[in-house]
Amino acid sequence: MLVVMRDHASQEEIDHVVDRLHEAGAEAHLSGGAVKTVIGVVGEREVVYSLELEGLPGVEEVVRVLKPYKLVSRDFQAEDTVIRVGGSVVGASDAAMIAGPCSVESEEQMLAIARAVKAAGANFLRGGAYKPRTSPYAFQGMGVAGLELLREAGDEVGLPVVTEVLDVRDAEVVAEYADVLQVGARNMQNFMMLEELGKMRKPVLLKRGLAATIDEVLQAAEYLLKGGNRDVMLCERGVRTFETYTRNTLDLAAVAALRTLTHLPVIADPSHATGRRELVAPMCRAALVAGAHGLMVEVHNDPEHARCDGPQSLTPEQFAELMGTLGPILALDARRWGSAA
Amino acid sequence: MLVVMRDHASQEEIDHVVDRLHEAGAEAHLSGGAVKTVIGVVGEREVVYSLELEGLPGVEEVVRVLKPYKLVSRDFQAEDTVIRVGGSVVGASDAAMIAGPCSVESEEQMLAIARAVKAAGANFLRGGAYKPRTSPYAFQGMGVAGLELLREAGDEVGLPVVTEVLDVRDAEVVAEYADVLQVGARNMQNFMMLEELGKMRKPVLLKRGLAATIDEVLQAAEYLLKGGNRDVMLCERGVRTFETYTRNTLDLAAVAALRTLTHLPVIADPSHATGRRELVAPMCRAALVAGAHGLMVEVHNDPEHARCDGPQSLTPEQFAELMGTLGPILALDARRWGSAA
Amino acid sequence: MLVVMRDHASQEEIDHVVDRLHEAGAEAHLSGGAVKTVIGVVGEREVVYSLELEGLPGVEEVVRVLKPYKLVSRDFQAEDTVIRVGGSVVGASDAAMIAGPCSVESEEQMLAIARAVKAAGANFLRGGAYKPRTSPYAFQGMGVAGLELLREAGDEVGLPVVTEVLDVRDAEVVAEYADVLQVGARNMQNFMMLEELGKMRKPVLLKRGLAATIDEVLQAAEYLLKGGNRDVMLCERGVRTFETYTRNTLDLAAVAALRTLTHLPVIADPSHATGRRELVAPMCRAALVAGAHGLMVEVHNDPEHARCDGPQSLTPEQFAELMGTLGPILALDARRWGSAA
Amino acid sequence: MLVVMRDHASQEEIDHVVDRLHEAGAEAHLSGGAVKTVIGVVGEREVVYSLELEGLPGVEEVVRVLKPYKLVSRDFQAEDTVIRVGGSVVGASDAAMIAGPCSVESEEQMLAIARAVKAAGANFLRGGAYKPRTSPYAFQGMGVAGLELLREAGDEVGLPVVTEVLDVRDAEVVAEYADVLQVGARNMQNFMMLEELGKMRKPVLLKRGLAATIDEVLQAAEYLLKGGNRDVMLCERGVRTFETYTRNTLDLAAVAALRTLTHLPVIADPSHATGRRELVAPMCRAALVAGAHGLMVEVHNDPEHARCDGPQSLTPEQFAELMGTLGPILALDARRWGSAA
Repeated sequence: MLVVMRDHASQEEIDHVVDRLHEAGAEAHLSGGAVKTVIGVVGEREVVYSLELEGLPGVEEVVRVLKPYKLVSRDFQAEDTVIRVGGSVVGASDAAMIAGPCSVESEEQMLAIARAVKAAGANFLRGGAYKPRTSPYAFQGMGVAGLELLREAGDEVGLPVVTEVLDVRDAEVVAEYADVLQVGARNMQNFMMLEELGKMRKPVLLKRGLAATIDEVLQAAEYLLKGGNRDVMLCERGVRTFETYTRNTLDLAAVAALRTLTHLPVIADPSHATGRRELVAPMCRAALVAGAHGLMVEVHNDPEHARCDGPQSLTPEQFAELMGTLGPILALDARRWGSAA
Repeated sequence: MLVVMRDHASQEEIDHVVDRLHEAGAEAHLSGGAVKTVIGVVGEREVVYSLELEGLPGVEEVVRVLKPYKLVSRDFQAEDTVIRVGGSVVGASDAAMIAGPCSVESEEQMLAIARAVKAAGANFLRGGAYKPRTSPYAFQGMGVAGLELLREAGDEVGLPVVTEVLDVRDAEVVAEYADVLQVGARNMQNFMMLEELGKMRKPVLLKRGLAATIDEVLQAAEYLLKGGNRDVMLCERGVRTFETYTRNTLDLAAVAALRTLTHLPVIADPSHATGRRELVAPMCRAALVAGAHGLMVEVHNDPEHARCDGPQSLTPEQFAELMGTLGPILALDARRWGSAA
Repeated sequence: MLVVMRDHASQEEIDHVVDRLHEAGAEAHLSGGAVKTVIGVVGEREVVYSLELEGLPGVEEVVRVLKPYKLVSRDFQAEDTVIRVGGSVVGASDAAMIAGPCSVESEEQMLAIARAVKAAGANFLRGGAYKPRTSPYAFQGMGVAGLELLREAGDEVGLPVVTEVLDVRDAEVVAEYADVLQVGARNMQNFMMLEELGKMRKPVLLKRGLAATIDEVLQAAEYLLKGGNRDVMLCERGVRTFETYTRNTLDLAAVAALRTLTHLPVIADPSHATGRRELVAPMCRAALVAGAHGLMVEVHNDPEHARCDGPQSLTPEQFAELMGTLGPILALDARRWGSAA
Repeated sequence: MLVVMRDHASQEEIDHVVDRLHEAGAEAHLSGGAVKTVIGVVGEREVVYSLELEGLPGVEEVVRVLKPYKLVSRDFQAEDTVIRVGGSVVGASDAAMIAGPCSVESEEQMLAIARAVKAAGANFLRGGAYKPRTSPYAFQGMGVAGLELLREAGDEVGLPVVTEVLDVRDAEVVAEYADVLQVGARNMQNFMMLEELGKMRKPVLLKRGLAATIDEVLQAAEYLLKGGNRDVMLCERGVRTFETYTRNTLDLAAVAALRTLTHLPVIADPSHATGRRELVAPMCRAALVAGAHGLMVEVHNDPEHARCDGPQSLTPEQFAELMGTLGPILALDARRWGSAA
C-alpha cells in the first residue's frame, strides 16, 4: 500500500501517518520529492487492508498495490483448476455446456429438455427451482418439487445438474439434489451465503454481480476458497450499463482478463447477458474464443409458454444447431466438451 | 401492456399473438397503421406481467405501461406514510437524522458517540453489528455482542436504534435488539430476506442497490408491503457509475422522483454515497432540499482508529456543526426533526 | 508518478524501467519491500505525463499522483474566480440564473420569454441558435437568424446572452452576438474547439460530457485557460447511467467536489439532467445548496409547441414560482443573484 | 409512436393530446381500457419525431416505435454494404485488418510499421496525425507532416490509409491524403462534422461514442448517409462503465446486434477498448466470431518509446502471431481478408 501525501504536507502530518502505521504493526518507507511525499506500507495483508488512512490530515490518496485476494490468484496456483462432477469435467482444455430451462416447470418439460440438450452434446443440465424475481407478483419457482424433477431428469439422461441457491437456509436441501450450486448475480456479495457454501464440498458456480468489478468477483470467490471449497467456477453474465438494446452488456474482456488473473474456470452466460435469442449464438461462439471454459444457455421446448425467460430461450433445434458450430471453435485450440469418459 | 409488431408483420403472426393472449386470459385490442400493428393487452396485473411475448414471431417490442408495483404507489395511498419508532417520527414533515458509527466496536465507543449525536439533535442511532465486507480478510463486525452494545447505548440516550440484517437467519435476533431493521444495498434484491422482513412488524430501512433502478427499488419495497409490513423507508445511497472521485454517485433526482411516486419516507445516505468526509455536509443539505425525509450519517469519536469507514466519518464536532446548518433548511418549509414529544 | 512493479519483478526489469526514466529526463526513486518494488518518478509535469510505462516488462500498475491540470486548480489560485458579463456577475457569492428557451424560434417567442425571465429575476438569458440533435431529421436551430433574435431580446431586457457554439467554424460569428459562449456536453472533448475558444476573450460555459469524469472536465477547462481565457464556468448537466426514469443522473456531489478542486464558477443544469419538468425545481434548490454558483433552466412561454425540450421547460409562471423559493436559499449563506449594480 | 395516458386521465386531457396531434398533421388512434388510454400516432417520420408530448397534462409516457433511422437500416437495404478502397475490400465476406501505430511519429517509424503489418497480412494502414488528447500537455500529433508520412508509407506498401479527422476545418486536407476518414469516439455526435463528411465521397469509419447507445450510433451514421455518403463503416471501441481493470468495456453484443440492424460494415477496435496488450489478441478473435467485418489494431515497432498508447500496442512479431490465429477463424465461415485482387 502507498500513502500519497498532499503537495507540501507538513512534517507533522507525515509523522502522524507513520505513527499510525507503526501503531498498527506495519512498516513505513518514505520517499519524498520536492513537493510530494509518498509513504510505502509493508505489513501483513490483513493488517494493511484494515487500515483506512484516507481521512488522515494531509493524505491525498491511498493506493492499494497488493491484490486483495490470494487463494484465487494465479500467483498462488499457476495451473488451471479442473473440476470433475459426475462424468463431466470443466477447466483447462475441458469445456462445459450447461443447458436447460430457466425454471423447472413440470416433469414432462424437464425430461424433454434434458433429453434434447444431452442429445445435442451438453454435459451439464441446468434448471431453476427457486427464482429471483424483481416483482413479487412474478412466478417464484417450484421449490423442492422443482429440485426433485431436476434431479430426476439429470439422472435419467446422465448429466450433473446445476441449480441456484436463492436462500442460505436452503443450501443444505439444494445440495441434496444438485451437483453444482449456483450463486446468482444478486447474491454475489451475499457474504453469509458465500461463507456457508465455502464450508460445503459441492462445486459452486458464482455469477458476477450486475455492477461488480473483476476485483470484486475475485474477492467473492476468495470467500469460498477461504472456507475450504476449491471447486469454484466464475460466470460472466453481463454488467449493467446505459445500453438498453440488450438486457445487460456482456463483458468478454473480463473473461479474457479473468483467465490471466485466476486459475478458476470461467463460464459465460449469453442468455441472461443479452436477453435476446438472436444474439445468444454469436455470443456463445465469441465467449469460447475469448477464453471461456464453458457456456450457460437457456433452452426450452416451448419458449412461448415458458414461465420465465422465454424470449431468450433457444428451442432444442436452435440449440443443436448452435452446438454444431461450437465444435469447430473448440477444435481450433484442441479443446473438447469435458467428459471423464 | 402493448405489443408492438414489426413493420409488415403477417396476419398469421398477429393472430398468433392474439391467440396466446386469449389463452392466458387476457384481452387483445388491435390498432393498426399502414406498416405497423400495435396490440393493447388488458388483464390482471399478475397475468399480464407473467406474459413474456418478446420472443414470438413478428414481435418487435413489448411495452409495459402498467406500473409493476401497487401498494407502494401514490396511486394506492396519496398521503405520506409516517413512521413512529419509540419517541421518534419520520415521514411527511417529520425528518430523521440517523447517526452513529459504521460499526459497533466497544461499549465506550458506542456510548460516547450515542451521547454526542443525541446532544447534537439526532433522533435515531445507527451502528453495524454485522458488516458486509468485500474482502473476506476485513473486519466482519461484532455480531450479537455488537447488538447488545447498540441497544444499551440507544436505551441510555433514549434513541431508537437502526442496524443491518445481513443474514436472513439473523432476522429474529436482530429484531430483538433493534427498532429499525436495515436491508443493505447488496441485499436489496435478496428476495427471501424481503419476504421474511415483510412478515415482521418492525420498521425496515431499505437501501437502494448499487445498480438498481428507481423502479426496482419500488418493487423491492413492494415485497415488504405485500407481506404486510407497511413501515418501510427507502434510502438512496449512491449508484455505481464510471466516476471514481466519489465512491458512488448520489442520485438526488431519484429522491425527488421517489417523493412523487411513493408515499413511503425517503432517506439519503451521503456518507456511503460520497465516501469523502468533506462532501458529506453539502450533500446532507442538498438531500434535505431535494425532498429527503431524513439522512443517515456516519459519526465516529476517533475516525482514525475506526474499524471501517473512518475516511468518511464525521467527528462529533463536525456532526454538531452540520446539524447547526440543517435546522434553517428544515425551517424553509416548516419541517422539524421528528419527535413524538 | 509511481511505477508499481509486479511481485518478484526481476532486477533486470526494474533496471529497465529506471533506464527508461533517465532516458526521458526524469528521476527514479526506488523503495522495495520483500516482494514488491515501487519506483517513484520525479520530473516535469509534461515529461512525466508523456511517459506510458504500463506496458514495460514487470510493470504492474502506474499510479499518477500529480494532478493532470494546473491552471484550473485551487492550488494555483485559491480564491474563487468571479466573472463579470454586462451587468451580471457569477462566482464567489454572486449567483447566476441563466434562463430561456431551449431554442430560439421567433422574435415574439424570444421577447416574451426574455421579459418573463428578467421580470422573475434571472440575470442571464439563454437560447439555442444551433442545436445538436441526435437525429438528422430533428429541428436543427435557426442559425444566424436565431443569434440575431437572441441578441435583440437580450438588449431589450438588458441581460447578457448565453448560446452554444456547435461548430468551431461558427465561433467568430457566435461571438459577435453572444456574451457567453457555451460548449455543449457533446463537445466537451472537442479539443480543437477548446483551443479556439481559449484564444478568444469571451467567457465560456463548459458543459460536462455525458460520460466525463470530474478529472476530465477539469482537463478540458485547462485547455481553455492554457489558451489564455480565464473566464470559464463549468456546468454539471447529468451523466449517463443505467437509470432510465430521468434523462441523465444529476451528479451534485460533483458540484461540491468541483468547488473544492477548482476556483472556477460551477453551474448546474437540472433541465437537461432530469428531462422532467416536475424535478427541475427541487434539483435547482438542491444544486444551490450543494454549492453551485448558478443554474441553467429552460423556460418556454408555450411548452406544448416548443420545438425542443418542451417536456422539461418551465412556463414563465412556474419559473417565477421557482425563483421565489431560491431567494431564501441563497440568503442562507449570504449570497445573491450577481449584479454589477 | 404511442402516447400512454396516466391512469384515469380525463377526457379533456385525452382530447387535448388528440388536438395537438391533429394540429401537427398526425393521425390519432385511441384504444382504451378501464383505467388506461393509449393513443396510437400515425404520420410522417419527421413530423412524429418532432412531437414532444411528454409534458402534456395527463401523459404518462411516450413510446417511439418507429426506428429513428432509415437509410442505415436493413429494412431499407437488406444486403450488406461492401466498400472498396484501393485494392482492399470490407463488407459481407470480406474482412478488414486496419493496423498501424497510434500516432505517426517519423518516416522511419511509419515505413517500418507499414512494411511489417503489410507483410503480416493487414489490408489497411492506420496512423494518427491529429490526436485527441485529454490533457493539453500531451503530444497532439504531427499534423500535415504526419499525413504526408502516412500517405508515403501507404503508397510504399500498397495499402489504403485510415486516419482521423479531428477538426472539421481539416476535413478537406485530410481527405487529400487519406483513403478512409475516421471520426473518433469523441466526435461521434459532432453533427457538423458528420454533415461535412456526408457531403464528401470518401469512405468514413465512424467510432461509437464512449456513452453512445446502439441507436445513437445508427442515427449518427444516418447523418452521413443522408448527406449522400454511402461508404460508412461503424466501429465498436468499448463503452465507459464502472469497470476500471480495462480502459473501456468492449461491447461485442453490440457488434452482433448491429449486424442484424444495419447493412453497414462493423469493425471492432480491441486496442482502445481494453487498453491492455495481453487482451488485444483474444478480443480480436472474439470480435471476428461475434460477426465483426474487421479489426483495428495498434502496432508499434518500439512500443516502449511510442508517443501514445504504447501499453496497448502490439509489436510486429505479436501482430504477425495474431494474424496467424485469425485466418482459421475467418475460414470457419468462408471469409477472407478483403482484396480486390
